[in-house]
Amino acid sequence: MFEQIFDNVRKKAPLIHNITNYVTANDCANMLLACGSSPIMADELKEAAEITAVCGGLNINIGTLNRRTIPAMFAAGKRSNELGHPVVFDPVGAGASAFRTDTALGLLKEVAFTVIRGNVSEIRSLAHGGGATRGVDAAAAERVTEENLDEAAAFAGEFARRTRAVVSITGAIDIVTDGERTFCIRNGRPEMAAVTGTGCQLSALTAAFVTANPDCPLAAAAAAVCAMGLCGEIAGRRLTDGCGNASYRNYMIDAMYRLTPAELEKGADYEVR
Amino acid sequence: MFEQIFDNVRKKAPLIHNITNYVTANDCANMLLACGSSPIMADELKEAAEITAVCGGLNINIGTLNRRTIPAMFAAGKRSNELGHPVVFDPVGAGASAFRTDTALGLLKEVAFTVIRGNVSEIRSLAHGGGATRGVDAAAAERVTEENLDEAAAFAGEFARRTRAVVSITGAIDIVTDGERTFCIRNGRPEMAAVTGTGCQLSALTAAFVTANPDCPLAAAAAAVCAMGLCGEIAGRRLTDGCGNASYRNYMIDAMYRLTPAELEKGADYEVR
Amino acid sequence: MFEQIFDNVRKKAPLIHNITNYVTANDCANMLLACGSSPIMADELKEAAEITAVCGGLNINIGTLNRRTIPAMFAAGKRSNELGHPVVFDPVGAGASAFRTDTALGLLKEVAFTVIRGNVSEIRSLAHGGGATRGVDAAAAERVTEENLDEAAAFAGEFARRTRAVVSITGAIDIVTDGERTFCIRNGRPEMAAVTGTGCQLSALTAAFVTANPDCPLAAAAAAVCAMGLCGEIAGRRLTDGCGNASYRNYMIDAMYRLTPAELEKGADYEVR
Repeated sequence: MFEQIFDNVRKKAPLIHNITNYVTANDCANMLLACGSSPIMADELKEAAEITAVCGGLNINIGTLNRRTIPAMFAAGKRSNELGHPVVFDPVGAGASAFRTDTALGLLKEVAFTVIRGNVSEIRSLAHGGGATRGVDAAAAERVTEENLDEAAAFAGEFARRTRAVVSITGAIDIVTDGERTFCIRNGRPEMAAVTGTGCQLSALTAAFVTANPDCPLAAAAAAVCAMGLCGEIAGRRLTDGCGNASYRNYMIDAMYRLTPAELEKGADYEVR
Repeated sequence: MFEQIFDNVRKKAPLIHNITNYVTANDCANMLLACGSSPIMADELKEAAEITAVCGGLNINIGTLNRRTIPAMFAAGKRSNELGHPVVFDPVGAGASAFRTDTALGLLKEVAFTVIRGNVSEIRSLAHGGGATRGVDAAAAERVTEENLDEAAAFAGEFARRTRAVVSITGAIDIVTDGERTFCIRNGRPEMAAVTGTGCQLSALTAAFVTANPDCPLAAAAAAVCAMGLCGEIAGRRLTDGCGNASYRNYMIDAMYRLTPAELEKGADYEVR
Repeated sequence: MFEQIFDNVRKKAPLIHNITNYVTANDCANMLLACGSSPIMADELKEAAEITAVCGGLNINIGTLNRRTIPAMFAAGKRSNELGHPVVFDPVGAGASAFRTDTALGLLKEVAFTVIRGNVSEIRSLAHGGGATRGVDAAAAERVTEENLDEAAAFAGEFARRTRAVVSITGAIDIVTDGERTFCIRNGRPEMAAVTGTGCQLSALTAAFVTANPDCPLAAAAAAVCAMGLCGEIAGRRLTDGCGNASYRNYMIDAMYRLTPAELEKGADYEVR
């Protein structure tokens, strides 16, 4: 199944509109190119709806949220909804400030998202209307482990049903659910957290995957998570003496560039509940 | 000729003022450093004219255009004109939104550009006052090929005469013309399109080359295109198993860092019409 | 001593709030992760004070200064002062425009900085209320050499006493002083200047080091300078045929990721006056 999903990305080369942060925009652009998609970054209200209309999908990321770009997020999100385009939301740092949490909640209210992707603290902040995110990383106490996986999956499923979005919570174990079916994914390596923007890249990738596969957003979002994790594994095997997180960052994008649909199918490590 | 032009860049180390996008600013800065130039990124109206005055040349790029930085583009462009500094314009995504097209046309009206560099769709949008740019990539139907090269060169020449700028259209075959003489350049590799910002980097590079060679902007702009394409070739030969677009990005900048004027002279692949 | 200081960074993993430029934000984030710290980039007034409060330290960098983010710098700086958090200031390009110099002087007036880190031209501009910075690089005539080291150290010490901050001037020879004791540091390589943002990365690193070592800001700032320079040396030894400034950039971050406290202790090359 993932083979076909990834093949659609490579063949359709979806154009993705990104309203995102300036810290990881370059990595997101190169990751989109690596998977066979094309990026356009545009965050100005005066063109947001128009740019969205020429694209196939939209990726909204609040990593360096500021007043100037918020109206563009709402305008592009609503226009994408009107056009039936997939919209992915990455609530970076929700819970770390009222400004981020409130903006994220406002977006959830007015824009129908196809996928909401974040770490567990960010998603819990959205679900509970506030929280204790440690900056842009998940709080240790909230991390998904084998022990609390059932509870976390139940929480994610409930939030998915409430928002009618696929909810994609990533961490040591990833949970991707639409509230009916849940993918528990074990691809990836802990060192991925030492590279800034792996989450942002995954959200961009998710937008490409769901845009190229409009009929199966749940499986497409899960495939994107597996693809990212698998690239983390492949890149990890390429590390040699002297390598650190900068080489690892490059190698993950390189791995996506070379990953084949068949390799994704074979390397994806998940169970469906 | 290109040997002398590149030697001037290395020896004069021109300081280039960049008003550019946040997606590829880091790559542009490192590419400028690689060629022997120095970058300063500054997009605030309150300092734009002053920063431009301490620099040797200006590079305006509308990749993540927003209302805040537009006045800085006009102010810096006009001040550079007053001072006789070279100004390069990269109309990223012109044609993809009215906001971009209109801003680009406004700049063309009020600022005299030394070089206008873009893909064929962007340049056609400027020439025709609108267009159908596919995001930030050239539309397939408009791409320059051996079959339509004569027509494309004629179009570029006409636009160059009209704007009194060197027009630099890059793609599989590159066209650099001042409306009198035309360089058709065949350096480069298709994989360069899989790295975000190679066009932005070339525009920054072009600014350095024309700034260090004020007497021959056409040849300097052509030399920059050849240098970028040649670095794409050199970097391509360095790719090994496992490499993808992230390694390729790094290797192109590395190649520019090491490229000698004599190597550029020897490796430049062009004809003059 | 530096061993313990770096060990504290790795063990405490301080969360650093960065209000910084979009050119080097990605490198700063990866460098912070490489040293064991966590970054959050947030430059919006509406959340600046709140984000600062959940972090351990603050890093203010005016590399792409604009009107929108200045109020956030003041708000976060003052809030950090109230909370007793370390604050690092990187006055990128001070002296290159009145806008930068004035903003920097305004910040110096209203915010108590723990460390002020810049090149010699930037620091002289702050000390003299103006100057002749060459873009974002130090003016050749002002560079610290063996010949003018005594004078430069005396100048730095005087500025440190006046601002009650540790002053960290980096170049071929680095000077880190609190006005009482002065570290003269000889780690590093000249090629580091060919990578954009090594100064920005050092400022971010300095914030992590002083945050994890609140009782010894002078030694912590000096340790950060040594660590950065040492990574420049280690990365330099890893360069092979074909490598340039892009590989060098990656290798420096890689080197920080792998550097041990004991290696820093052993490799730090400094004298205390």
